[in-house]
Amino acid sequence: MMTKRIYLAGPEVFLANARDIGARKRAICERHGLIGVFPGDEEDPCDPALSPAEQGLAISRAMERVMRRCDAMIVNLTPFRGPSADVGSAYEMGFMRALGRPLFAYSNDSRSFPDRIASFCGAVRIRTTGEHEDADGMAIEPFALHDNLMLAGGIIASGGCVIVETARDTERYTSLAAFERCAAQAAAALLR
Amino acid sequence: MMTKRIYLAGPEVFLANARDIGARKRAICERHGLIGVFPGDEEDPCDPALSPAEQGLAISRAMERVMRRCDAMIVNLTPFRGPSADVGSAYEMGFMRALGRPLFAYSNDSRSFPDRIASFCGAVRIRTTGEHEDADGMAIEPFALHDNLMLAGGIIASGGCVIVETARDTERYTSLAAFERCAAQAAAALLR
Repeated sequence: MMTKRIYLAGPEVFLANARDIGARKRAICERHGLIGVFPGDEEDPCDPALSPAEQGLAISRAMERVMRRCDAMIVNLTPFRGPSADVGSAYEMGFMRALGRPLFAYSNDSRSFPDRIASFCGAVRIRTTGEHEDADGMAIEPFALHDNLMLAGGIIASGGCVIVETARDTERYTSLAAFERCAAQAAAALLR
Repeated sequence: MMTKRIYLAGPEVFLANARDIGARKRAICERHGLIGVFPGDEEDPCDPALSPAEQGLAISRAMERVMRRCDAMIVNLTPFRGPSADVGSAYEMGFMRALGRPLFAYSNDSRSFPDRIASFCGAVRIRTTGEHEDADGMAIEPFALHDNLMLAGGIIASGGCVIVETARDTERYTSLAAFERCAAQAAAALLR
């Protein structure tokens, strides 16, 4: 049985204690027979001679290299600065999907996508055609999927899953209960 | 000279008049010698026998097929339900990037990414390490890039560009001034 390298995407890279979360995620992966690869661990040492933009672009190049060497991903879809997932993680999902890698997902927010949008945008309006839209006139997806249909569709088409738990507000980005269930599912799918 | 098919990603698919925007975008592409492919035009007729979730997944599969047949993308990064781009478009960027296709981007919001985050999240705090973070304790990227570094990095690494204009509030998702400049740049890069 080959070991599998799992790219661990999610907005927790932006936490002050990101490295600790990464270590906890890697330990959970190891318990399930997987090798967790945490983005925050994979950045090259920052070259202070580079401009800020060049530093950011260097991290992007490194992460694309790292993703190409991973067999699958586990992505944290917990909403970030809005009702949907972090855009960096969404980019990485599309990247891995196009490479044919399975996407396993989890979220620490169990509300439906329309409920998250309504909570975020306030007033929901109904078009004469019956569709619901937000205060900017943008349609609210009626598909009963966890997030934007491209994200949900990529997960399902790749053979992955979405695991949802309700975390306390103080543990919104740090609870790993849903992550652990997701890692178990990924291991069951990848290591058979 | 081969004609080039350009996938036209962006949150305007959620507008009530999405088809009109798509037609205007395709006309602009044509003026620049490009074939614009608008997602809203590419959905198969909805099968009412399918569940809502199955309808959404069918659109996702269709869009992945469509993207594989396109040579490049022009993506609308105008912030959507938060300080960053639409997550569906971000997913499509990663998808096209992994396929080696060039990503050309535009935004109708010319504010810097940190300014958009500050405007969205309110209070910005400074960590003892000097980094800035939002009210959730999430780092604000210091890289002077237009959006999350994975998005900006994918655009640059693919040979694309980011075109920014300031649109009036009422034309935030409908102004095509930045799109037209972006189409011109894409044509110059792809049709030489």
